[in-house]
Formats: sequence, C-alpha cells, structure tokens
Amino acid sequence: MLELAFTPDRDRTEPVYRQLRDYLRDLIAAERLPRGTKLPATRELATSLGLSRNTVAQAYDELVADGLAAAHVGQGTFVATPLRPADDTRRAAARAQTADDPPRGFAWSGLFALRARALAVPSGLVPRRGGPVRWDFRGGQIALDTLPTAELRRVFGQVLATELRDVAAVHTPYGLPVLRREIARYLVTRGIACEPDDVAVVNGAQQAIDLATRVLVDPGDSVVLEEPGYFGARVAFAAAQANVIAVDVDAHGLDTDALARVLRARRVKLVYTTPAAQSPTGVVLSDDRRRALLELADEHQVPILEDDYDSELRYEGPPIAALKTRDRAGQLIYVGTFSKVLFPGLRVGYVVAARPLLDKMMLARWNADVTTNVIGQAALAHLLASGGLTRHLKRVRVTYAARLDAMLQSLASAMPEGVTWTTPRGGHSVWVTLPAGTDPDALMQSTLDAGLYYTPGDVFCGDGRGGRHLALSFANHTPAEITAGIGLLGTLLRKQRASGRRSARA
Amino acid sequence: MLELAFTPDRDRTEPVYRQLRDYLRDLIAAERLPRGTKLPATRELATSLGLSRNTVAQAYDELVADGLAAAHVGQGTFVATPLRPADDTRRAAARAQTADDPPRGFAWSGLFALRARALAVPSGLVPRRGGPVRWDFRGGQIALDTLPTAELRRVFGQVLATELRDVAAVHTPYGLPVLRREIARYLVTRGIACEPDDVAVVNGAQQAIDLATRVLVDPGDSVVLEEPGYFGARVAFAAAQANVIAVDVDAHGLDTDALARVLRARRVKLVYTTPAAQSPTGVVLSDDRRRALLELADEHQVPILEDDYDSELRYEGPPIAALKTRDRAGQLIYVGTFSKVLFPGLRVGYVVAARPLLDKMMLARWNADVTTNVIGQAALAHLLASGGLTRHLKRVRVTYAARLDAMLQSLASAMPEGVTWTTPRGGHSVWVTLPAGTDPDALMQSTLDAGLYYTPGDVFCGDGRGGRHLALSFANHTPAEITAGIGLLGTLLRKQRASGRRSARA
Repeated sequence: MLELAFTPDRDRTEPVYRQLRDYLRDLIAAERLPRGTKLPATRELATSLGLSRNTVAQAYDELVADGLAAAHVGQGTFVATPLRPADDTRRAAARAQTADDPPRGFAWSGLFALRARALAVPSGLVPRRGGPVRWDFRGGQIALDTLPTAELRRVFGQVLATELRDVAAVHTPYGLPVLRREIARYLVTRGIACEPDDVAVVNGAQQAIDLATRVLVDPGDSVVLEEPGYFGARVAFAAAQANVIAVDVDAHGLDTDALARVLRARRVKLVYTTPAAQSPTGVVLSDDRRRALLELADEHQVPILEDDYDSELRYEGPPIAALKTRDRAGQLIYVGTFSKVLFPGLRVGYVVAARPLLDKMMLARWNADVTTNVIGQAALAHLLASGGLTRHLKRVRVTYAARLDAMLQSLASAMPEGVTWTTPRGGHSVWVTLPAGTDPDALMQSTLDAGLYYTPGDVFCGDGRGGRHLALSFANHTPAEITAGIGLLGTLLRKQRASGRRSARA
Repeated sequence: MLELAFTPDRDRTEPVYRQLRDYLRDLIAAERLPRGTKLPATRELATSLGLSRNTVAQAYDELVADGLAAAHVGQGTFVATPLRPADDTRRAAARAQTADDPPRGFAWSGLFALRARALAVPSGLVPRRGGPVRWDFRGGQIALDTLPTAELRRVFGQVLATELRDVAAVHTPYGLPVLRREIARYLVTRGIACEPDDVAVVNGAQQAIDLATRVLVDPGDSVVLEEPGYFGARVAFAAAQANVIAVDVDAHGLDTDALARVLRARRVKLVYTTPAAQSPTGVVLSDDRRRALLELADEHQVPILEDDYDSELRYEGPPIAALKTRDRAGQLIYVGTFSKVLFPGLRVGYVVAARPLLDKMMLARWNADVTTNVIGQAALAHLLASGGLTRHLKRVRVTYAARLDAMLQSLASAMPEGVTWTTPRGGHSVWVTLPAGTDPDALMQSTLDAGLYYTPGDVFCGDGRGGRHLALSFANHTPAEITAGIGLLGTLLRKQRASGRRSARA
C-alpha cells in the first residue's frame, strides 16, 4: 500500500477533505503518484490517517471531478491515465490530435448538475480487492450451468432467420406487440388478468423503478422503502432527490403498522415493496399484512410499486399470488423481470400499470432510450409462446431448491452460536445476521483473501444499519461447493471473533 | 367524426380547458362517448370548436390523467377501455379480481410529479390517420432489404453457442470490455484516438443524450440546440426542464456567430450539435465553423455534445472527420450509434468522453437500467472484429447513394416552382422547404390519404417555425419507388396550392 503522510490542519478554515485533495494533487503533479497508480480504498486510507471515510471519499470525488483521478466501478480509484496509443494507427491519430499544443484538462467538476450529486452506487457493491474468486455468493448471480442454451439458440435463430425485417425498425416505447401479448398471457400464472395494452416492456426491473420514480417523484417528495430493502430502488430514489423513509421488515414482511404511522404523519408519493420474496430477506408478506397494505394504500391514496422480481422461483408450497391480483382501483404498479429466471444480461423486464400512469412512464421511456432491443424481445416472445420458459422454470426450480437446501443445512452445521439467518422457500439468497461484537470489515477482508465473496448487508440498509448482516446467494454453486464455502465462512467467522475477543482483552 | 357541441363560457373563472374536460367527462359518464371511442385529433377539434390546440390538448391530458381516456402513441386518444378478458382463464382471473366490489379508478392526475409535466413526444411524430402505407419517407427508416441477415445470424449464433455463460451475468454499466475495445479500434476510422476505457456502451444515441443531460443540466439551465434540430435532444432537454436556446443552421451548419452571441449573453451548460450530417438538413459543418465552435467552447468552457449518428453514411468525397478529433481539452462528448448503419431496434450506441464525465454518466446509467443487453453487445463485437460491419457499410453506401440520387433527381423534376431542398451527400434524408402560402396541414392530409408518409418539419423546430418544412427519408425505398412517390408528392403539392389560390380568390 502507498505510504501517505497527511496531517490535517484543523485550524485552517479550509475543510479537511480539500486539504487532503490538495495534498494528493501535489503528489500527482510531482509524479510521486504516477499516472495509473491505484489509490488506497477510502476505508483503508481513512483508518490509516484517522479521518472519516466520508472525508476521504470527498477528496477522491474532487480529484475525479478535476480529471486527476478516475473511479472505475468494480476496480477502485486511479491516478488518471494519459492517452496511451496502442498501435501505429492510433499513435498517428493521437499525434494529429496533439500536434498544435499539449492537452489541457477540462474542469468538469464545476459543471455537474446539482441533481447529479445524488447519483451513487452503494459502497458495498464496489468490489474490494481479494483473492481469485473461488466462491461467489454475491447477489445478481444465476445458475449459469442451467442456462437453456439450445432453446435460446433456437428462438434467437428463428428471429434472425425470418423476422428481422419485421422488427428491425420498430421503436414503440411500449415494446413489441407480440411480446406484450405473451407477457399478458404468462401473467395468468401470477393470477394477474391484464390486456396486452396494460403491459410495457422495459430493460429489466431497474428501468421500471426509475421510470415510475421519474414520473411520480419530485425532489423532496417522500417515498417508502423496505428496511432492509432493494438497493436498486434506493439509488433510483436517491437520484430523484427523494426523501427515502425506511419501514422495517420482520418475519412476516413489511411492518404495516409502522407503515400506517408513516402514512398518517406525511404524504408519501410511492411505496416500494417485494411481497413474494422480500429483497434481501426472502420473507413472504403475510396475508394479514397484504390486506393491511392495500387498505392503507386505499385510505391514503398512495401508489404501490410491487417488485415481483423473484416470484417464479418458489421451491415449496403453492405459488404466492401477486399483490396485483387484489388491485381493484389500479393503484399498483406491477414490475417483473426475466433477469432472474433467465439471465440478467438479457435486460428484459415488464411493467403492468393503469393506462394513465403507463402512458406517462412510456413518455419518459421515449426520452430515456426509446425502446428495448427488438431481437431479444422477439426471441423471448417465442420462448414464452413455445412453453420453453415454463419448461426451463421447472428445471431450474429443482436446481435452486437443492442449492437452497445445501445453503440452509451448511449454515446450520457451520455457523457459530449467535449467527441467525432467514429460511426463505424461494428466490436466490439468504439473509444472515452476525452476533453483536463481530467486526464486519475484518470478516470481509479475511473472506476476500480466501476468495469467498458475498454482498455486505449495508448495501441493503439505510446508513449504518447493515453492518451486522450479509446476503448470501446460493444461485451459482453446486450443493457440494456451497457446503465447502459455508464451512470456510464459519471457520473464518470463528477466527475473527476469537481474535476480536483477544484484542478486546489485551 | 364525432359531433361535439361545446361552447366555452368565457365569463367563468374556470379555464376553458377545464370546461371542455368537464363537458367530455359528462358525455363519457352518460355513455354518449362509449368506451373505446377515438377522440378527434386535437388539431381537428380545435379547428371545429374555434379553440386553441393547446386548450384541447390540456383537456385531453386531464381526461387521461383521470383515467377516463388513454393516449396511445401512434394511435390517438381513446375513451378508456375496461378490462376485457380474452379467454376463459383470464376471465376467471378477472372474476376473482373483481368479486368483492366493482373497480374504482385511481386518481393518477393528482400524483404525477411536477417534473413529469415536461415529458412529451412532438405532436408531428404521433402518426395521423391515413391510407395504407405505400411510401414511407418518415425518419428512422433504414434499407431493410440490405440487412446483413446471414452475418447477423453468424455472430449471434457464435455468442449463443460459445459465450453465453461468460456474458450472461455481466452487468457493468460501461458495457462488455470486448465491445469497448472493438469500438475504440473502430473509431480510428473517424479519426478518434481513444482507449477502451474512454468508451461506454449505451442503448443508442438517445440514452447518451439523456445521461449527459441528467448529469450536466439542472432545471432552468440553458442548453443550445440547432434549429432545425434533432427532436430526440429537444425532448430530453425538455424533460430535464432545461431552457432550450435555438441557434440557427444554414448551408454551412450551425451559425457560430449566433452561438457566440448566445454564449456571451448567458451561461450555457451544453451545446448539442450534429456536425457530420446536420439533423435534419444533412448539411456538413464547414471547417471555419468547426474552428470557431471549438474556440467558443474553449473561451466559455462549455461542453459540446457531438452526435455523430449518421457519419458513416457518406456517399461522396472523403469522410468527414469527427469534431472530437480536435478535442484537446476533453470537453467534447462524442456519441455514436449502430442504429443507422445496422438497424434502430438493435439499441446499441456508444459515448466517448473524459473519465470524470463518463464515470458520472455511468452512475446515472446504473440507476437508469444498469447496462445494455449482453447478447447484442457480444454479437456486435464479433461483427466489428471480423470486419463484417465494414463490409456491410461498403454495400449499404452504394444502395443509399443510389436512393439519394433518385430522391434529388425526382425532387428536381417533380417539385413545383418555389420548393427548395438541401443536397446532402450522406445520411438518410433531405430537408424540403415549401413556398410561402402552402398549407402544410392540407398537404399532409392529402398525402396521408394517398398512403404517402413523411415527417412534418415542425418536429425538428421550436414552436411554430417548422410548418413550411418536411423531412423526407430515402432509406427504405428503391429508386423507382422514390421516383413514383416524389412524383405523387409534386402532384399533390400543385393541387393543394391551386386549391389554396382558389379559396384565397373566393
């Protein structure tokens, strides 16, 4: 790690983060930090300098904004790299470009919109350095070995062979009529009666959340999010400069009594919820709570966004009906996706909503990116029409059920006392709570070193509330791999707690 | 057409549009306008009632917001249709859903965000009723008969056969590394030297414009748009509640003297321009103007968004270098797309920008829809790497050159005196100016009746300035079809002008 010897001058009126920025800027200018150097993680630097993590992050942000550093999601922050021509053609082009006088950096920092300050990725999603990946228990994984490759080749081939000319220039924001029809038909399996005209195709659930937010939420408006809750909704609300109100989740799902208190106290523009398999706990919203939620929505005339992202992946008991099936007034925005049942890179999801809202969302969609790629849409329509998706679902449910069982059994046998976890009967992951006194950072560093990756709980929680949790996805490992990985996690957790006790005694 | 007998009461304090809304609401409640009825086009109803078109549009908006009508892009506004179960399963589901008490409409109108009011599609893009399509000269078309179907089957097949597992769960907002590398290499043909890290993949040029706007423009900020100019940029700026300043275009492209006056008078956050083939005129920005534009950008420290959407489609003379090749400070945001050279439904474009800006845009991207579909990305990487795209470009340039020639020749022989048009040497369309005294609405109705469709000029112009223009795309018709279609357009234009003179005399 880089040796940085910075001491803040607390007597200066200049904030500490600016002082740190200037210190780093001078090092960069003097080439003591050469271009391409990876800066230490904010957490590490904050600890080593005795500063708050936020101070370091602000200093880095300013360096990035000034073009002196670059933050790459998934890699960290680097001292900015100059143009590095890779071959003769490019070298020539680069020469032509710089012939007259040397490049000067453009000061982007002063130009960003105020509203752009609210854009963020949860820090826990920015991968930290670790060993080569041996276990990937992070969210967003799927069982790659169950991908229906032959079936996908067939349906994509069909589109390219016979339908390309028909769909190539279609650009209605609502999506291809044939796919809207197939989705409306498919949704009967979720108990939802709707017409193709009630359905719009989007690029995955995230876009539906973003569009609903663009259309319903002004800066300062209040929205309700489950706590813990889906980070994609949290960032979309934050980007809209919304006031995010956390309502706790327990073993029965969203706490509707707490929601009632919030709705009585203030006007809320949107309630986001994941009733079929709460994200990240996997808990199912109980029937009483469902009734209470709909009554509250009716009483306070507040729209509900039901993110049904994981509902098809249920491994035990009857399917859970969508909340949307009970939506008589048309105040539920129903969002689904093929990211979990097929694969996330497909980027096809859908939204079912009342026409006035759907039309407004599609106006926003037209501004945003016009429509979803038509080849994927047309191929998916074939997959739905031929029953290929249903067959695939039957297969993957068996696979995932075995993986979930392996996960729950290995947790039971490997976790030290005091660790608890949810026991979902569907979805992709389990939510683990560590005993008080565990150091989540130390645990994470030891697991990363061992090549074991998971999503830290703070990704799903409001500030400072997630440290004791972790989300473990069982999607992309065999039962045997899961047993070995969770065994290792248990060992590392015991070690970390033992060393924690030792240092507390010392 | 519906007979509507509404007379506004100008003495009432209630605005006329509200009075019209209530009148229509009563008709709907009394079922005199049954569900499913198409409401007259705003233009027609405004004319027949002697109201402004805006008044009618506002009344319709309120009906839509109240759930009493539905506006379908491309079809018009309809009295809202109830749930219509299509088969037994859905009928049963519908029954279950409505067993307890009848549905009540949810009042969405009061819930839309203030910022959602700025969302719009230019009215000229909402298709009007007409005869079966015989000539489609509207924008957004491509030569469907030149689609490289075999090549596309090959590259998509390759991805599905061997790479699906590698890309299925990739979800970096920047796009697949292999495609970023191929795009960086490809851009040498545009004179641009950049590294893969300078490139991000987006869902077409529209998303790049939207993301740049989200990141740079706050409500009330000023942005510059060419006049006439690309409607996609206009709607994205409007959605951001920006103050859009029109700067005129002439035969040499954007008028940089006029731009200089604007930049001296006020702070501008972004200048949008299409230097290689101005949208919609097809004019190339002259060398003097290019220099002037870059000097102004430097002097006023304003970012330039260069939309290079059509640059590969140049049929005569040397390729036009991108403005980006002269961007030494990194203040140009370069946007390209495969929509025009392949097909729009592919939804793959790219942006090249300085890292601080690119990183910020990708944070916004992550909120918006995470990433672009990976199968399309991986297939495109193969198409670029194998030279397939370059071969395709050589073929389509020949096709388009012949179509452009046919278009220019038939305009010369078929247009009545007083009609003028641009003579682009690239792109997809020609910008036609009608003589003063032409009634653009009457002309459009007569061409629509004949099955001849084009994009009316007001789509590309600020309020009230586009009536005398039309954009004619020559992309998707053979030279013979173009000759016949433009011949008919000439005939209809002469007729319309003759009847216009007769009624002026009467």
